[in-house]
Amino acid sequence: MSILAVGSIAFDTIKTPFGMVEDIVGGSLTYFAVAASYFADVNLVAVVGEDFGEQQMKVFAGRRIDLQGVEHADGKTFRWGGEYSYNLNSRETLFTELNAFESFEPKLPESYKQADIVFLGNMHPSLQSGVLEQMTAKRLVGMDSMNLWIETTVDGLREVLRRVDILKIDDSEARQLAGEYNLRKAAAVIQEMGPKMVVATRGSHGSMLFNESNIFAVAAYPLEDEVDPTGAGDSFAGGFFGYLAQNASLDEATLRRAIIFGSVMGSFCVEDFGTRRLERLTFDEILDRYRGIKMLTHFEDV
Amino acid sequence: MSILAVGSIAFDTIKTPFGMVEDIVGGSLTYFAVAASYFADVNLVAVVGEDFGEQQMKVFAGRRIDLQGVEHADGKTFRWGGEYSYNLNSRETLFTELNAFESFEPKLPESYKQADIVFLGNMHPSLQSGVLEQMTAKRLVGMDSMNLWIETTVDGLREVLRRVDILKIDDSEARQLAGEYNLRKAAAVIQEMGPKMVVATRGSHGSMLFNESNIFAVAAYPLEDEVDPTGAGDSFAGGFFGYLAQNASLDEATLRRAIIFGSVMGSFCVEDFGTRRLERLTFDEILDRYRGIKMLTHFEDV
Repeated sequence: MSILAVGSIAFDTIKTPFGMVEDIVGGSLTYFAVAASYFADVNLVAVVGEDFGEQQMKVFAGRRIDLQGVEHADGKTFRWGGEYSYNLNSRETLFTELNAFESFEPKLPESYKQADIVFLGNMHPSLQSGVLEQMTAKRLVGMDSMNLWIETTVDGLREVLRRVDILKIDDSEARQLAGEYNLRKAAAVIQEMGPKMVVATRGSHGSMLFNESNIFAVAAYPLEDEVDPTGAGDSFAGGFFGYLAQNASLDEATLRRAIIFGSVMGSFCVEDFGTRRLERLTFDEILDRYRGIKMLTHFEDV
Repeated sequence: MSILAVGSIAFDTIKTPFGMVEDIVGGSLTYFAVAASYFADVNLVAVVGEDFGEQQMKVFAGRRIDLQGVEHADGKTFRWGGEYSYNLNSRETLFTELNAFESFEPKLPESYKQADIVFLGNMHPSLQSGVLEQMTAKRLVGMDSMNLWIETTVDGLREVLRRVDILKIDDSEARQLAGEYNLRKAAAVIQEMGPKMVVATRGSHGSMLFNESNIFAVAAYPLEDEVDPTGAGDSFAGGFFGYLAQNASLDEATLRRAIIFGSVMGSFCVEDFGTRRLERLTFDEILDRYRGIKMLTHFEDV
């Protein structure tokens, strides 16, 4: 099964207590694509500017990533800058320059219009709806969103949510979307809005899957060296949907394994700036960390 | 195996968004004892005032709790009042009246001086050391502490830590004690101070066990109705050390099951004010929730 993924490709400037990088290739779709490409073929729909050349495209090269849907527009590429607190638990946005992303209208190449899994990255709900309208066949729709759209475009957000199977969202944003602090109740409220499943990521506290009648929870892999959390949630989504695409099943055991592969990819992402750690992974390292999380969390029945 | 436990018995006044209770029987030792008594015999050392009579003692009655070591002093019992925020995630102390606890000097009855497990509840480190000095035989020493002692009495705290096997502590306080934000590194620093094992509780995010060469992590049981988090960490400690006393082993499998029983008792505690939910538990309910956490967290190997 293949994945069609739509989102942002950007130049990121990131300051953490461990260093600073300028204008590295980032954006939610980049993290998602690199992570997912370890498991499945990924077709990308995005926009970059004139400043995004061969050198920048190298992050995608030699991977199971198709770039036909990446539009090269006039002007500059989306740029974002952020600075993290000493413990990496909060960050301040230093600047956001939408540039080419401001007038982005996702256009799907003909060959992308049938997809097994569609992943709608975090962007304006009208763009997310626009992608779904171009599809002629799809089996599963996944989606990400954020507080900005909950606060400014909640009607559009609810409209696209009705057509989504799995919402992957930060736990605090799940609470905000549902208007309910208790995460279990919040997930139930969101499930009434459309998505049968809610995947709530909780940063260094782990993640949860709310399925129709089951809940799954896992602690995060405790890293000794955390360098840069940027893109960890997008990498989680890449591992999660990538594994689902690889296995073409939505049974409970597969979904739970997909959550673990999501955690694995999110945890690797944090170990270096940008996509650096993700780029140099081997599949054996991915499997080793999966088994590491199994050892970390296993206990016996009574 | 039996437990000798030392700590505070108090009257608590608690406000949460779900209601208010005044002068109910609380204190860290009360939660610990009720939780642990489902698993093992618990001998209590504490002080109460003249206002703590038969009626108040009922919380301990009909349980595997021995009260010979509870001193009845002149004056009033320790009183504490606190108010929780709308999401129960933060609380403000409304008042603290130490009363009889102010001049408390734990005195162990002769029959308590040999114990399998000693649990030193959260109190001044000199009182914790004083208890250990009265012991003639012990197999395992557990301990709790808090930010107040880290900030005001760190030398005394370090002295008692050298004699402790298992430190059970809130994750933020583990970070503070170690002077290290990364929890894995913080645990390693604390292990150098004495305790071979560190149990870090993380509230609604679960808990972790740092053993000599292993780490275990579990997510918290997601409650639909949280009423009052007071005493949840003490109830966790009661379930954890109670299960260790019941099973007289420190192998990895037993320690991990003990963490789950700690989570179970902590999660029940939150479901009602004070010790109410803990008091009316059946052992079948405890086992059911253990199995619930197993179902919540289980995933298959790859």
